[in-house]
Amino acid sequence: MPSVNADCLFLKACRREKVPRPPVWMMRQAGRYLPEYREVRKTASFLDMCHTPELASEVTLQPIRRYDFDAAIIFSDILIPLIAMGAPFEFPEGGPRLAEPFDDAKALERLKRVDAVTGMPWVHEALSLTRSQLDPSKALLGFAGAPFTLFCYLVEGMGSKLFPKVKQMMFRQPELARELLQLLAEQIGEYMVAQLEHGADAVQLFDTWAGLLHPDDYEEFALPYARQVFDRVAQTGAPTIYYVNGNPSLLSAQSAAGSTIVGVDWRSTLREVNRKVPSNVGIQGNLDPLVLLSSPEVVAQRTNRMLQEMDGRPGYIVNLGHGVIPQTPLDSVQAFVETVRASDRSASS
Amino acid sequence: MPSVNADCLFLKACRREKVPRPPVWMMRQAGRYLPEYREVRKTASFLDMCHTPELASEVTLQPIRRYDFDAAIIFSDILIPLIAMGAPFEFPEGGPRLAEPFDDAKALERLKRVDAVTGMPWVHEALSLTRSQLDPSKALLGFAGAPFTLFCYLVEGMGSKLFPKVKQMMFRQPELARELLQLLAEQIGEYMVAQLEHGADAVQLFDTWAGLLHPDDYEEFALPYARQVFDRVAQTGAPTIYYVNGNPSLLSAQSAAGSTIVGVDWRSTLREVNRKVPSNVGIQGNLDPLVLLSSPEVVAQRTNRMLQEMDGRPGYIVNLGHGVIPQTPLDSVQAFVETVRASDRSASS
Repeated sequence: MPSVNADCLFLKACRREKVPRPPVWMMRQAGRYLPEYREVRKTASFLDMCHTPELASEVTLQPIRRYDFDAAIIFSDILIPLIAMGAPFEFPEGGPRLAEPFDDAKALERLKRVDAVTGMPWVHEALSLTRSQLDPSKALLGFAGAPFTLFCYLVEGMGSKLFPKVKQMMFRQPELARELLQLLAEQIGEYMVAQLEHGADAVQLFDTWAGLLHPDDYEEFALPYARQVFDRVAQTGAPTIYYVNGNPSLLSAQSAAGSTIVGVDWRSTLREVNRKVPSNVGIQGNLDPLVLLSSPEVVAQRTNRMLQEMDGRPGYIVNLGHGVIPQTPLDSVQAFVETVRASDRSASS
Repeated sequence: MPSVNADCLFLKACRREKVPRPPVWMMRQAGRYLPEYREVRKTASFLDMCHTPELASEVTLQPIRRYDFDAAIIFSDILIPLIAMGAPFEFPEGGPRLAEPFDDAKALERLKRVDAVTGMPWVHEALSLTRSQLDPSKALLGFAGAPFTLFCYLVEGMGSKLFPKVKQMMFRQPELARELLQLLAEQIGEYMVAQLEHGADAVQLFDTWAGLLHPDDYEEFALPYARQVFDRVAQTGAPTIYYVNGNPSLLSAQSAAGSTIVGVDWRSTLREVNRKVPSNVGIQGNLDPLVLLSSPEVVAQRTNRMLQEMDGRPGYIVNLGHGVIPQTPLDSVQAFVETVRASDRSASS
């Protein structure tokens, strides 16, 4: 398997080395905004795509072919390991759903501990296959849902505006919540390590719902479990990204979770993020994904603003503040990538 | 009409005077968690309740009778003035909906400027009626949606996770967006003044969706229009509260909008809010409404924590960080109110 090479811009940025321009990729870049993705999707269900390494690998490579992003992120879903652990999520139009949420004392009995390689092999096979086809100058990213975010889906049984069942368990049965979170932290740590052993060059942990927590609750129910995951992955030496959505108050705590990079949403200016995140931690983000609904000119202007705000800071990775949405025009994405590429100092001097 | 008297704890706190304990009320306290509210609701639709001053007044007074809150907030909906302005929102189970969103250049033609008294009389009549029945030691609050939040509902035509039509208009047709926001700011300013002339002692402006904005966009599309509303209301001398939901990064800008008090959601600790908000601005909040799903003991503990975090700061009003949800147990609300009342220094010394 041809692995990533020493010139990989993405990995250099992760090591906070000097780079001619920051690397760029987009959360959910292997997705429905791409016509070639929609073609593949016609032939298989979302879950079948996740469970079929050839299809997952194909859609992972599509955005690299079209836009030459600096990193590919493997096509999968954060709920895939939960399905393997005995939580049979389905994926209807309105978002993922579990017929029987894990919201009572039986939750711990129902959730199975499984081997992070043989018990959930699909993503690993897709990673190996993708790494063998990906240009050695590009990084391949694995990912997982953070323990708290997976706990949210498990207990609520679906996405939610406020997650009342989750909060009820946290506040009424904190011991049960902690046992579930502990099991998830262990499984996700091993799952990420297995991804790194099967071709991923770095991994991103998505804490999509952590922003719904009061900072004191974040410190109790989310941070310690994310930290456990990063402690486990740190043993491999691979770079890690910790993305938290929905609450800028959590930034300091998020920065102390042990990841190489913090991923931030679009709710803060990068001026503020740059000031608050310690210099030994990198930063990824944070264009409002809906800016891509504007025009190439506005996209270029906003992207340049981010580049200026982060100018001179090592360890910056350009990204959106959240996943790209399906109705995004292709030329906006082009403008986003080209603006970053045009900032290359070696090219312009 | 017997008006509020000089001993009103709520108004003293608004003036940052010394008080034996902070006043307490709850966002959405006139609502579905109360059995007596559900009884009234059986006899009329939500919209009919908003449009019938006797019913609106009755449900406004219910939580005062049961819990002796220090302020009553008039029962209405932030969309009521928009309906009067020609946007016929309906209220099915899934939330408010507009058959034809105001998402194109015709939006300005379709939106009518109306008299803030005669064109939207229901809330004013409900306020007069309520003030005449409310104990003079209690404050009566009017309210409105902030211009940006109303703009969101108008353009998207419903609630949304990301409001793509709204962002599209902001980024592609900023002039049109500004004209709509300007009209809303003028109408809402007059609407709030009219509420104060009809019995309200103070008014709260709800910017429920402003948290979806990048801080630079907040400064462009939300803050100036909220500020116009507060400038207009300041001419009356009445206290104002500016509640912003969903983005702690906006707190400094929010504090500079010109309101007497800033209302904050549960995403920040009050320790941090206390530190960041200038001393000439009061603070309202911020218990996670889902803490009320726990037990009276946990509610008391969390409420005491807030009281300690704000101890000694003039101008503090105890509230939730968002509206109380329908499945909230009554004894949790009791514990919340009693904990605040038990902090009375004059009683305990």
